[in-house]
Amino acid sequence: MTKILIIGAGRSATSLIDYLLKHAPSNDWKITVADVDKRLAEEKLHGDSSGTAISFDITNEEKRRQVILEHDLIISMLPATMHGSVARDCVEFGKHMATASYVSADMKALDEEAKHKNVLLLNECGLDPGIDHASAMKIIDEIQKEGGEIICFKSFCGGLVAPESNDNPWGYKFSWNPRNVVLAGQGTAQYLENGEIKFIPYNRLFSQIETIEVEGYGKFDAYANRDSISYVDVYGLRSVKTMVRGTLRQQGYCKGWNQFVKLGLTDDTSKITHANELTYTSLLNSFLPAGEGTLKEKFKKFAGSEWDTQTETMMDYLELYSGKKITLKEGSPAQILQALLEEKWKLKENDKDMIVMQHQFEYTLPSKPGIQKLSSSLAVIGKDQNYTAMAQTVGLPLAMTVKNFLTKKFKLSGVQIPVKKEIYEPLLKELEEYKIIFIEK
Amino acid sequence: MTKILIIGAGRSATSLIDYLLKHAPSNDWKITVADVDKRLAEEKLHGDSSGTAISFDITNEEKRRQVILEHDLIISMLPATMHGSVARDCVEFGKHMATASYVSADMKALDEEAKHKNVLLLNECGLDPGIDHASAMKIIDEIQKEGGEIICFKSFCGGLVAPESNDNPWGYKFSWNPRNVVLAGQGTAQYLENGEIKFIPYNRLFSQIETIEVEGYGKFDAYANRDSISYVDVYGLRSVKTMVRGTLRQQGYCKGWNQFVKLGLTDDTSKITHANELTYTSLLNSFLPAGEGTLKEKFKKFAGSEWDTQTETMMDYLELYSGKKITLKEGSPAQILQALLEEKWKLKENDKDMIVMQHQFEYTLPSKPGIQKLSSSLAVIGKDQNYTAMAQTVGLPLAMTVKNFLTKKFKLSGVQIPVKKEIYEPLLKELEEYKIIFIEK
Repeated sequence: MTKILIIGAGRSATSLIDYLLKHAPSNDWKITVADVDKRLAEEKLHGDSSGTAISFDITNEEKRRQVILEHDLIISMLPATMHGSVARDCVEFGKHMATASYVSADMKALDEEAKHKNVLLLNECGLDPGIDHASAMKIIDEIQKEGGEIICFKSFCGGLVAPESNDNPWGYKFSWNPRNVVLAGQGTAQYLENGEIKFIPYNRLFSQIETIEVEGYGKFDAYANRDSISYVDVYGLRSVKTMVRGTLRQQGYCKGWNQFVKLGLTDDTSKITHANELTYTSLLNSFLPAGEGTLKEKFKKFAGSEWDTQTETMMDYLELYSGKKITLKEGSPAQILQALLEEKWKLKENDKDMIVMQHQFEYTLPSKPGIQKLSSSLAVIGKDQNYTAMAQTVGLPLAMTVKNFLTKKFKLSGVQIPVKKEIYEPLLKELEEYKIIFIEK
Repeated sequence: MTKILIIGAGRSATSLIDYLLKHAPSNDWKITVADVDKRLAEEKLHGDSSGTAISFDITNEEKRRQVILEHDLIISMLPATMHGSVARDCVEFGKHMATASYVSADMKALDEEAKHKNVLLLNECGLDPGIDHASAMKIIDEIQKEGGEIICFKSFCGGLVAPESNDNPWGYKFSWNPRNVVLAGQGTAQYLENGEIKFIPYNRLFSQIETIEVEGYGKFDAYANRDSISYVDVYGLRSVKTMVRGTLRQQGYCKGWNQFVKLGLTDDTSKITHANELTYTSLLNSFLPAGEGTLKEKFKKFAGSEWDTQTETMMDYLELYSGKKITLKEGSPAQILQALLEEKWKLKENDKDMIVMQHQFEYTLPSKPGIQKLSSSLAVIGKDQNYTAMAQTVGLPLAMTVKNFLTKKFKLSGVQIPVKKEIYEPLLKELEEYKIIFIEK
């Protein structure tokens, strides 16, 4: 019998738990779902006899270590910053661990000890990062197998709202942690462009954008992710001249969001006290430079050439001029903005979300003259606000890879991400059964 | 006998130590100067029999507590973030403490216990904060004593280079912590303007500036400090409609500095690895959007209307196009920029620095019709790169106020800043003896 512990029973764990429960009886797995809110864990198990729900507080060290000790493989669905203590416990006790999060410096530091103890620390095995690595590496390995050289690699992904549920002018609703969406991109993005290292600071991230087209789904804005350069080595792209990974939003979103960046409404380092004595209208006025005219006229002047019918509609939708009260007692500008957006960008009960991913390759082949082009695109529409496309595409690759590891389809230890053929090949094949299929062009 | 401990013997402590040594014999003081570098502490004492130098590491808790226990009053000249542990020890042992730094949340939290134990925690008693509070409160108290109401209060201060040593186009050299200069203003500035709360985010801080004139010293750029609003209550300005505190730079500096902000060169949250394989020229190129022409032409296009002869001269001075090597192995963009500026903006041996301060008041008086205006300005030129204007104007107010407290010119406990008459009156009077004199107009 193998005991699997899943820490965190939030929305993103739904599909993961379902999949593991489904495969539990035939593999003799016992599944424990642990959450601060035990009822939430119970709900996700819907009475399945292979599963047990427990109440779990990550900060209770004694209990945490005891629970980890009782299991064989631990899946952490916690926010990335909370994996550290779990990972250290896992390596100490010789337990495998799996997450959908980026490999942190803390995680990296455990690599050697984990290898020594034959412990797997699987990371970046969700959607982005996750499916993007797997699907890109499949193509990269194929091209390189034919003796080809990749010159340009661009990869984009966005968690969006499905066209049929897109009833707001931003084309966006939260299917993922709202805080991460509001703070997205702070710092400096780095990528390669025509052989040169390029940096984009936060203040230009949403204006220095690209337009990406995905057949059947239209055009999207794409802004650069934090660090694309480190993946040159990870993907083994020796000759690459252009390498960008980015995030997709509906076309026009970035122009609107850039107003919040310029205004200062996404700053998370300062505190506005007595915020609940203000309105969103007075807050906007306080961030706008002094000037003549109505608030909307001042805003229009501030936005300059970025103000068009779409921007106007987006801002109107957020009720910025109506004297809407701020409910947070105090908070950073970013927290106050987030509170408004959580109300305006909420997925309604029957709303469906959508994830879109596209890889673009330019490469040479010894067998053909000139530069070859290939694009590989994926679009997944969610079922409802619980079984979102996001929950499926984050949870299933993690669950499938855990199954493939436990059923010995691959044998690896230490810090791993799904860039190796033995991981991505069975994964991509099984994802197709779930209609998660890339279209190559 | 009273035992005074001074922690930190850096440049900013020079005038403070001299003053306290001078007054030690007549007051029966023993002065201990503690620094990580004992030789530095010894140098500052130049053999004075009232002083002892010790080697001191703030992170060595046992030694720190032992040394604090042996003294009656502790002056911390450490960076502001390092006062916390010293303050807690002081309150625990019933020792008085004095700093030139802003009151932190940690410090504030000790107020009640300090009052209970009759311990003074004197803060913000340097130049800015310090002399600004004292000199502003003198005028505010005078106006309010006559029944007047202050409508507008603006206060500006800058640590600059003296006109006779101003041989670079930025009009700036480091007379203070370079890191703080490079990171200045990150977050959101808040102030009052015509009765409205105004916020300026970092990305607009160096373009939404004022021009300030100080007679005999010319015009200066002024950008807003982080938090001006909290001083409305501290200064007791009940009816004030405009309240701004700001930082002065030579005219044109902000336009130049804004290019670094826009480029992203002041970001301290991201790390550039292998920086020493780059040059400042390639770094600039990496931060500039892709485009045609030489690097300087691309930079000019990027700066847009902010590019003029002065900006051009400022950038030329920094040797940005000459392929100058980066020496830091890795670091944030801000750290890499700082390394260049520390070389270019270094005070030379015979260079003199200058501090400039100006308060502007608009107020009503019951005895006179209309709105009254008053400005109060201070300029101090340093002696050399050790006895800087900065070291004098930071160290002397702290030293004098410590003397006034120990000689019982005022009796206060808990967290205090120099806004009370019993503190500022003797202080401003004695500062005049050192030629630190405000000119009212």
